[in-house]
Amino acid sequence: MTDSAAPSSRTAVVAAAIDLFVQHGYDQTSVEQIAQAAGVSRSTFFRQFGGKEDVVFADHEVLLAETRAFLSQPHDDPWAAVCEASVRVFRHFAADPELARRRYKIVREIPGLRDREIVTVFRYERLFDEYLREALPGLDPLDAVGFAALVTAVHNHVLRRLMRGARVPASVLRRALDDALRRYGVHPGGDAAAGDDLIVAAFPRRMPAAEVTRRLRASLGE
Amino acid sequence: MTDSAAPSSRTAVVAAAIDLFVQHGYDQTSVEQIAQAAGVSRSTFFRQFGGKEDVVFADHEVLLAETRAFLSQPHDDPWAAVCEASVRVFRHFAADPELARRRYKIVREIPGLRDREIVTVFRYERLFDEYLREALPGLDPLDAVGFAALVTAVHNHVLRRLMRGARVPASVLRRALDDALRRYGVHPGGDAAAGDDLIVAAFPRRMPAAEVTRRLRASLGE
Repeated sequence: MTDSAAPSSRTAVVAAAIDLFVQHGYDQTSVEQIAQAAGVSRSTFFRQFGGKEDVVFADHEVLLAETRAFLSQPHDDPWAAVCEASVRVFRHFAADPELARRRYKIVREIPGLRDREIVTVFRYERLFDEYLREALPGLDPLDAVGFAALVTAVHNHVLRRLMRGARVPASVLRRALDDALRRYGVHPGGDAAAGDDLIVAAFPRRMPAAEVTRRLRASLGE
Repeated sequence: MTDSAAPSSRTAVVAAAIDLFVQHGYDQTSVEQIAQAAGVSRSTFFRQFGGKEDVVFADHEVLLAETRAFLSQPHDDPWAAVCEASVRVFRHFAADPELARRRYKIVREIPGLRDREIVTVFRYERLFDEYLREALPGLDPLDAVGFAALVTAVHNHVLRRLMRGARVPASVLRRALDDALRRYGVHPGGDAAAGDDLIVAAFPRRMPAAEVTRRLRASLGE
């Protein structure tokens, strides 16, 4: 048994804890059991984590730090950088969907963990918001707040699909983030062409509504 | 001392509690002191509120129920209904900005209350999201999720300005919500125009296809 608080020991503790939570239930699992299963001492556990809850959200602590580091690098386009940061977080969970799904199952069942997740998600939103305001001086705070909320909500919805068992490639998130960029008129490559133009359609009034709908859907590229 | 759990007694308890929290600090104030100051018994307090925290968020419980009731009424335009619901919540707090400011001050100082506020705000977001999906069958969930998040974030930012002491008329929020409607291509005014023989319809390309269909059906009198 090694007592050094190396990152690998942290990962082992998280894996052991998730295993125990799934097998015996979150409330029924003690810190002692986690420490024993992971082969660390109780004091090592408490040096690495504040408590049982923190084990469940350990990845987010690392990801939030990585996201902050990524955004603090120079970026030509801060809007795109926020989207890129969002894709990176998604990719982290998509790399091991089974672990993500097991963790999600635990979180969903315990109200306290669900609340903690909402608070954790909000930390990304605030990070994006603060980054945009800093990177784009003079930006209306409402635009920073709104874009950050939109990106975070879209990210979460796509991630939740993955965690519920669907196969969700990162391209699904990318497309949704492209839409977000277009809605804010900041999509690289010209918003006017792809996002802001109008579909103008003329139909005889006697044309059945279903046919009008069908043609319109076709012209919208659905 | 009356022990009937009437709404007026609830309001009195909230007012007394906020007074005590501001004067002596949240952590330093006991349920006993609140009950005594409000002129109710300890058991009445616990019938009305689950605990001290719930007193701080009592308004939101009422507002969430009112918002749900408002949205369950028929609305011609579900997007506009969500915005209207948001303005109604804002108006509630703007009607007594001093109380809102004192409550905000308490929440900001206690980490547990800050987290609870984030969770509470998310309940509005989820309510808007669920309402849009129900009111607009076929709507891409990503559009519901995104619009709900955008409206909630913008609402909160404007409300926070008010709570920090600024004079913020509801028109500031209305303008921000108009922007949100435009970003989703669903601002009323840019709608279908019907001629005698031709339906000429113009839609922003970014408007969700399901919404285009809905509007077209409506303009065709279906």
